[in-house]
Amino acid sequence: MDKGREMKIGVLISDVGVHPAAWLDPDAPLGGEASFPFYLRLARLAEAGKLDFFFMADSLASRTGDMAGVMRQCTYTAHLEPITTMAALAAGTDRIGLAATISSTYSEPYNVARQFASLDHISNGRVAWNIVTTAYPAAAANFGRDMQEDHARRYRRANEFADVVNGLWDSWDDDAFVRDRASGIHFDPERMHVLDHKGDFFAVRGPLNVPRSPQGRPVAISAGGSEPGKELAARTSEVVFSVDRDLASALAYYKDLKGRMTKFGRRPDDLLVMTALNPFVGETDEAAQDAFASLQARIHPDVGRAILSVDLDVDLRGLPIDEPIPDGMLPASTNTTKSYFDKMTQAMRDRPMTVRELYEAAAASRGGMNAVVGSPQTIADRMEEWFRAGATDGFMVRIPQLPDGLARFVDLVVPELQRRGLFREDYTGLTLRDHLGLRRPDTPRLCEPSHRPAID
Amino acid sequence: MDKGREMKIGVLISDVGVHPAAWLDPDAPLGGEASFPFYLRLARLAEAGKLDFFFMADSLASRTGDMAGVMRQCTYTAHLEPITTMAALAAGTDRIGLAATISSTYSEPYNVARQFASLDHISNGRVAWNIVTTAYPAAAANFGRDMQEDHARRYRRANEFADVVNGLWDSWDDDAFVRDRASGIHFDPERMHVLDHKGDFFAVRGPLNVPRSPQGRPVAISAGGSEPGKELAARTSEVVFSVDRDLASALAYYKDLKGRMTKFGRRPDDLLVMTALNPFVGETDEAAQDAFASLQARIHPDVGRAILSVDLDVDLRGLPIDEPIPDGMLPASTNTTKSYFDKMTQAMRDRPMTVRELYEAAAASRGGMNAVVGSPQTIADRMEEWFRAGATDGFMVRIPQLPDGLARFVDLVVPELQRRGLFREDYTGLTLRDHLGLRRPDTPRLCEPSHRPAID
Repeated sequence: MDKGREMKIGVLISDVGVHPAAWLDPDAPLGGEASFPFYLRLARLAEAGKLDFFFMADSLASRTGDMAGVMRQCTYTAHLEPITTMAALAAGTDRIGLAATISSTYSEPYNVARQFASLDHISNGRVAWNIVTTAYPAAAANFGRDMQEDHARRYRRANEFADVVNGLWDSWDDDAFVRDRASGIHFDPERMHVLDHKGDFFAVRGPLNVPRSPQGRPVAISAGGSEPGKELAARTSEVVFSVDRDLASALAYYKDLKGRMTKFGRRPDDLLVMTALNPFVGETDEAAQDAFASLQARIHPDVGRAILSVDLDVDLRGLPIDEPIPDGMLPASTNTTKSYFDKMTQAMRDRPMTVRELYEAAAASRGGMNAVVGSPQTIADRMEEWFRAGATDGFMVRIPQLPDGLARFVDLVVPELQRRGLFREDYTGLTLRDHLGLRRPDTPRLCEPSHRPAID
Repeated sequence: MDKGREMKIGVLISDVGVHPAAWLDPDAPLGGEASFPFYLRLARLAEAGKLDFFFMADSLASRTGDMAGVMRQCTYTAHLEPITTMAALAAGTDRIGLAATISSTYSEPYNVARQFASLDHISNGRVAWNIVTTAYPAAAANFGRDMQEDHARRYRRANEFADVVNGLWDSWDDDAFVRDRASGIHFDPERMHVLDHKGDFFAVRGPLNVPRSPQGRPVAISAGGSEPGKELAARTSEVVFSVDRDLASALAYYKDLKGRMTKFGRRPDDLLVMTALNPFVGETDEAAQDAFASLQARIHPDVGRAILSVDLDVDLRGLPIDEPIPDGMLPASTNTTKSYFDKMTQAMRDRPMTVRELYEAAAASRGGMNAVVGSPQTIADRMEEWFRAGATDGFMVRIPQLPDGLARFVDLVVPELQRRGLFREDYTGLTLRDHLGLRRPDTPRLCEPSHRPAID
């Protein structure tokens, strides 16, 4: 590992915290998930902490359809939409990166390429797009599909989707718009590149009707846990969100993923691995543990069972919470979020757990398997250990309770990391690529000398 | 006409002005079309003028494909995307309405409903959506369609699209999210409405994953010139952009459109007609005419012919500019923008015009047929005449040159209208519905007492 190398930190925002009982805390800002001032406050907090980027969780369906009677106790049913929120945040922040999710299964690449290129202009080069294939059956029902496409097919579409979007972002050289009044020439057709893509899933002519953006291409993110997810990440992503529950598996994942890049003509440094981390920060370990225990105790058993039912793709309603899930009840595999399902079931094989223990663990590490409850030193220790071991390039921090949990992370953990020389004291560049140390893609003219003529 | 009734004014932004030679003016802000600070400056100017809303022109293709050799002299090839721009403008303005276009032909209603509901939250209720069916063949090629769907089919889809989007916006009653910590109930399933739409073009289950927005539903806009366009507007729109070249036809259009509403159970006041107006303002009539003549003289003949070729759906390259278009060269009708095509060809039948006269007229009234060049009094006279005659409820102002043309409109024409009691002195409400005098739609609970149960 390089001496002096700094970790990257992004923050994931979901409702008023990723913990399912966050809103039950007496100090929780009720309704924050639908309030732009709440997101703006959080983004500015993250920017004050010099974090790399701000990221909103997303879903293409309200988790209400099948179990509204239980889901009425849950959050994450309705909230602001990420792309519009990121655009508004771009106008209210200066330096922090802004990442939003799009679904390759339920979007058109031309629309997505336009919106992100525009976001990159509006933010002066601070935007990232997180490509997901959308596993929820409830999402399919909002887009006229009775059945979810299978996992492998969704990933084939995602790969082609990424190619089309990247191709559209290369429509114009940086200097294509000459806007020369003397000659009356507004753009130079020689510096325009017509994509003319025809593939298995998409036919898109181009060019994009947005000029090349400050970053050339917005930063590409994906979450690669499954086999096709890892291939997609190794082939096209620049940041990958990983979900690991221990150092050994994180090390193995890191080595596996970076090892896949050579065959796609990419260098290991072209992709950053960022591991999910759910930090619950207190002044001391004991204070943190106590506060966290009272948060866990607020989870209603119905909510706990509902969470597990979704994660494990099986109906667990009515099950006793102080006994394990009966043998044979879980499906062997799932067509939803495979990698998360696999890690949950592996954890259950490693150690028998009751339903309550399972849902408390799931709540603690919501969307990941890596929860740390403790003092700033304890949390920084975990981050330093994984980072120095070469198990990750940084962390996607999922804050259990907002805004307090983020304020404590920024006020207490960030300075501790800075003292250890593990995190920047201030931003040194302007764009998200600058923050992440990712190079700006060459203009197509430079990297494709044989591009086809663009004029008729 | 009511005594004391005030006209509504929206402003349409396109590049650095709707006039094709705007960018050739030595004072034009080159590259403004891709610069967020430029749009922000314009929106704040419009807000200082107390205008009702700010609207960006849009297209789903760069107008470069077929004739890049000519189009290189044109603008409107690449610019910011409207939804992201409006979201960022929402964060940078306080009162002015913000309108953006979506295509019912090339979008998914769930995605559109989400983004606009979110925009309405972010802006505190200042958003409108303009539904278009997208006539350009170049747009079809960006979405995997070789041929454009026919005009009638596009409109059938648009009607169903509007129904789905409106239904999704009615997913939640205003008070559905009770967020009651004592009982642990986050939302009341009785106040959730599952759309479960199954139609000819879309199958969308719902509910939307955004709470009901400040305006209930964002304001619905369309441009209804053709027969199905007028039916769509009468059935679902709250603002219609009209394109009329004289008072008589505007009066006839207004009466026609409002007369169609009864059969859809709507009142005439539920829909505002706003007529396109291209004002070129000078201190005096003579100063305005001189400045405008020098702008017209900057239009390159190739650009003029290219504009007409697109508008009239025929290749006019190489035609002499000081002679009329030869007999029999124009198609009898078009599958692109019908109403505009019809008005252009009607104008040619009324009076023989050379190619140059035609393209100068088209340039002067870009996107409309109603150009006024003159002093603030002259422009206010035209607006007052049409408004008092009952030919329109207001105007969609298309500024030939930006930002100066907008500054002159706000500084000179708006005060003249205020002196005449025709336009507001200040905003009296907070939302765009307040500005426009449109009522907020009832919550679905109130208007649909027999709604289906939402829980399983």
